[in-house]
Amino acid sequence: MELKEARERLMTLQAKMSAYDHALGILNYDGETTAPKATADNRARSMGVLSEEVYRLQTGEETVSLLEFLDEHKDELTEKEQRMVFLMLKDIRQMKKIPMDEYIAFQMLLAKSQDVWHTAKETSDFALFEPYLTQVYDGVKKIAGYCAPGKDPYDYWLNEFEEGVSKEYCDKFFGELREKLVPLIKKIGEAPQVDDSCIKGHFPEYKQEEFARYLMKLIGLDLDHVGLSTTEHPFTTSLGSHFDERITTNYKLDNVSSSMFSVVHEGGHALYDTGSADDLAYTVLDGGVSMGIHESQSRFYENLIGRSRPFIECIFPKLVELFPENFADCTPEDVYRAVNKVEPSLIRTEADEVTYCLHVMIRYELEKRVVGGELEVKDLPAEWNRLYKEYLGIDVPDDKHGVLQDSHWSFAAIGYFPSYALGSAYGAQFMKKMRETIDVDGCIAKGDFGPVNAWNREHIWKYGSLLKPGELLEKVLGGPFEASAYVEYLEKKYTDIYGL
Amino acid sequence: MELKEARERLMTLQAKMSAYDHALGILNYDGETTAPKATADNRARSMGVLSEEVYRLQTGEETVSLLEFLDEHKDELTEKEQRMVFLMLKDIRQMKKIPMDEYIAFQMLLAKSQDVWHTAKETSDFALFEPYLTQVYDGVKKIAGYCAPGKDPYDYWLNEFEEGVSKEYCDKFFGELREKLVPLIKKIGEAPQVDDSCIKGHFPEYKQEEFARYLMKLIGLDLDHVGLSTTEHPFTTSLGSHFDERITTNYKLDNVSSSMFSVVHEGGHALYDTGSADDLAYTVLDGGVSMGIHESQSRFYENLIGRSRPFIECIFPKLVELFPENFADCTPEDVYRAVNKVEPSLIRTEADEVTYCLHVMIRYELEKRVVGGELEVKDLPAEWNRLYKEYLGIDVPDDKHGVLQDSHWSFAAIGYFPSYALGSAYGAQFMKKMRETIDVDGCIAKGDFGPVNAWNREHIWKYGSLLKPGELLEKVLGGPFEASAYVEYLEKKYTDIYGL
Repeated sequence: MELKEARERLMTLQAKMSAYDHALGILNYDGETTAPKATADNRARSMGVLSEEVYRLQTGEETVSLLEFLDEHKDELTEKEQRMVFLMLKDIRQMKKIPMDEYIAFQMLLAKSQDVWHTAKETSDFALFEPYLTQVYDGVKKIAGYCAPGKDPYDYWLNEFEEGVSKEYCDKFFGELREKLVPLIKKIGEAPQVDDSCIKGHFPEYKQEEFARYLMKLIGLDLDHVGLSTTEHPFTTSLGSHFDERITTNYKLDNVSSSMFSVVHEGGHALYDTGSADDLAYTVLDGGVSMGIHESQSRFYENLIGRSRPFIECIFPKLVELFPENFADCTPEDVYRAVNKVEPSLIRTEADEVTYCLHVMIRYELEKRVVGGELEVKDLPAEWNRLYKEYLGIDVPDDKHGVLQDSHWSFAAIGYFPSYALGSAYGAQFMKKMRETIDVDGCIAKGDFGPVNAWNREHIWKYGSLLKPGELLEKVLGGPFEASAYVEYLEKKYTDIYGL
Repeated sequence: MELKEARERLMTLQAKMSAYDHALGILNYDGETTAPKATADNRARSMGVLSEEVYRLQTGEETVSLLEFLDEHKDELTEKEQRMVFLMLKDIRQMKKIPMDEYIAFQMLLAKSQDVWHTAKETSDFALFEPYLTQVYDGVKKIAGYCAPGKDPYDYWLNEFEEGVSKEYCDKFFGELREKLVPLIKKIGEAPQVDDSCIKGHFPEYKQEEFARYLMKLIGLDLDHVGLSTTEHPFTTSLGSHFDERITTNYKLDNVSSSMFSVVHEGGHALYDTGSADDLAYTVLDGGVSMGIHESQSRFYENLIGRSRPFIECIFPKLVELFPENFADCTPEDVYRAVNKVEPSLIRTEADEVTYCLHVMIRYELEKRVVGGELEVKDLPAEWNRLYKEYLGIDVPDDKHGVLQDSHWSFAAIGYFPSYALGSAYGAQFMKKMRETIDVDGCIAKGDFGPVNAWNREHIWKYGSLLKPGELLEKVLGGPFEASAYVEYLEKKYTDIYGL
C-alpha cells in the first residue's frame, strides 16, 4: 500500500463512519422527539442492522490493516492523522474484544431500554424498567470484562468517560468537595432563605420557546446550524458533523428557569461541538474530546455565566417583554437571587449549584456499588431514597422524582455522572484563567459574547478531539487542575448572596 | 448453495435494505420537518454515503448471485418469494445499467435540489432553482437512457411510476376526461356560484393541529404508529416498515379546508401503507404497489369520502366545537357546498375535484415536452403561465403560485403526476364496487370507518406489493378499469350541487 493512498483512505473511512453516525444519531433523535409511541421496536431493528454495519466497518480486516499500516508509518503522518489513527485503533482494539453478536444485541437492548424508561418514568413504575436496567448493568460489566480483563469494571468505565479518572481519583475529588461544601450548605441553611417567587407562576410554552431561541442567539449559537426540540430529558447531539447540531429542552409551565438553564447548558455543549475547526469535520476529531471537558463547557455557560449577576441583568428586559405579568414588579437582583436559591431538592437537573454535587455523588455511590456487585438493581430505588434522605435530608415521594429521573442509565452511560462534577470544577478554573485577560462581567452585561466565545474557541473548542483531556487542561490552565478554584468560586458567590 | 439457506438470506437481505431505507427516509424527513436551515449539505453528504452502500447492497455480486440462484429455483418458491425475487432482480437489472458514480451524484443532487427548491419557492425565484432542475431533468433522461435504451424516456418514467402506462395511454385517458369535464366545468361556470365563506376566516394553528389529529383517528389511523408533522408540501412516508408511518400537513391560517383535506389525503396513503399484511414487513412487498394505486387510496379518502355529504355531516359537530366563531351560524350543507366549490385556481393541491385533472394535464404536457426535448427548463415558467391561462383561464401572479408550487420535480418525480388523475379514476371505480356490498354513506355518516376500511384492507391494502397494479385492479373490479365511473361520479355530484 502507498502511504498517500492510505492517507486518503483514512479520510474516506472517517467520512463513511460520519454518515453512519448521522443515521444512527437521527434515528435516536427521532425516537426522542417526534416518533409515534409504538415505533420503538421498528427503530431498534434498523439501528441494530446499522450498528452491525458500523461494527464491520470499524473492525473489519480492511480497516484494521489500513490503520496498522498507518500506525507503522506514524512518523510520516501529521499530528491530526496520528491522533485519528490512535483513536480509531484504540476503539478497534477494544471493539474487537467484544463478540459481535453481543455488541449488536446490546445496541438493540439500549434502544429498547430507553423506550421502556420513558414509559416507566411517566408512570413512576420502576418494576417495568428493572429487567432492562439489570440487563444494561450486566452488559456494561460484561463489556468492561471483555475490554479490560482484570481491571475493575467501574474503573474501566470512569476512565472511558474521562481519561485518567478512577474510583480512587473520584473518591479524593468528591472528598475535597464534600469537606468544603457540606459546611457551606449548612451555613446557607441557617441563613434567611432567598425569595424565588418571581421565577414561579405560569409561563406559556410558546413564549418559553421564544425565550429559548433568544437565549440560543444571545450566547452565540448559529440557529442556521443548531436546532431546538422538546424532549423528556434535555440533550445535545451532533448529526454527521458539527455543521448540524441539535439541542433539546423541556418546558415546565410553572417555572421559567427550568428550560432556561437547560437551554444555556445544552447551548454550551453545542458551542463546544460547533466550535471545532471546520477541517476536523467528517473525522473522528470532530466535536468535544471527553465528557468532562464537555460538561466544563455546558456548566460554564449554565452557571458561571448563566447564573451570574451580569447575565441576569442582560436578559432581564427580555424576561419583562415576554412575561410582563411575572416580572413587571421585579428587579434583576430579585431574579439573580431567585435563580441562585440553594435548597436541597429532588431533581438533579434543577438543583442549585451548591447542592448539585451531592446529587452527582449519590449516583456515583450507587453505580459504583451496583457495578461492584454490592447492590442489586432491584434495590436501587430504596437505596436512592435512603441516600437522598441522608445526604440532602429529603424524602423522595416516588421513583419518577427519584431513581427514574435521569435517562443516562437507560443508554448505559454508567460512569458518566462524575464528569458533571469534574466539568463544573474544570469550568471554574477556566473562568479564573479567562478573567486574567478578559473583562468577562463587562462583556456579559452588554450581551457581547464575542470575547468569551473567542477565548473558548481559541483555547478549547477548535481542537475538537485533537488533544487529550489532560493535555488540553494543562495547555489552557498552564498548570495542574485543582478543585480549589471551584470551591472558592462557590464560597465567594454564596457568601455574598446569603450574607454569610 | 442450499435453497433453504438462500431463502433465509433473501429475508436477511431485505431486512438490511429496510434499515437503510429507514435511515435514508428519516434523514429526508428530518430535512423536511425539523433540521436547521443550513444543514442540507451535511445531510446530502451522509445520504450520498448511505446511498452508495444501498447501491452496493442491491447490486453487489453476492446479491445478484443469490437472486439469480433463487430465480432458477422459482418453482420451489412461495408466491411471495417469487414476487420478491422478481422485484429485486428488476431493480438490480436496471440499477446495474446506471454507472455507480452517476447514481450517487444524482442522489446527492436530489438532496441539494430539494433544499434549493424550498428557498426558491419561498422567494419565488425560479432562476435560483433552474440550474438544479435542469440537472434533474438531464439526470432523469440519462437514467432512462441507461435503463431502457431506445425507449422513449418519458414513456420509461410513466411506466416506472405506473406499470403499463405510456404517453399513448395517457393521451387517451386525459382525452376522455377532457371530453366530459370541459363541458361540465363550462356549465358549472355559468351556474350561480356556491358560497364558501364558512371555511374561510381565522383558524389558529394549534386548533387546526387538534382537528388534524381528530381526523386521523376518525378515518381509522393508529396514532401510536402514525405521526403528524408540518412541512411546506404535505407527504407520507414509511420508515423502515409499515409499523412507523409519518404524514405531514401544512396549516393555512385563513382556510380550514386546506390542511383538513391534506390530512385526509395523506391519511389515505398511510392507511394503505399501514394496511399491508404484517408478514410483509421488512420485505420489498411491504407498502403500496404503485403510485396510481396509492393515489387511488389517498384521493378515495380525500374526495369520495372526505368531500361527501355524510362525511361533512359526521365531522360538523367537531368543527363547531373547535371553531365556534366560524361555524356557529352554518349548516353541514353549507360546509358540504363550500368544500365542493368548483373554481379554476392556481394551486393543484387545493383545487376542487373537477378542475383538478386540468392541473395534472398541464404538468403532464410540460414534463412530456421537457423530457422530449421540445421545451427547455428555462422556459417552463412562461409555458406554465400560458397553459394556466389557456386551460383554466387564470393569470399566474408569480412562480411561487405557479411552476414552483410542487416539490415533485425537485426530487425527480417526473412522470408521477398522471398517477394522481389515474388514481382518482381507480378510486371512483373502487367506490362503485364497494357500494355493491356496503352502505358506505350510512357508515360514514355515523363515523364508522370499520366496514369501509375492512373492504379496502381485504381487497387492496393487505397485498402490499404482492400483486401487480393491473392484477390488483382486475381482482378488485372483476373486470377492466374504465374512466367512466369517475366521470359519471363527477357529473352526478356536481349536477346536484350546482343544480345543472
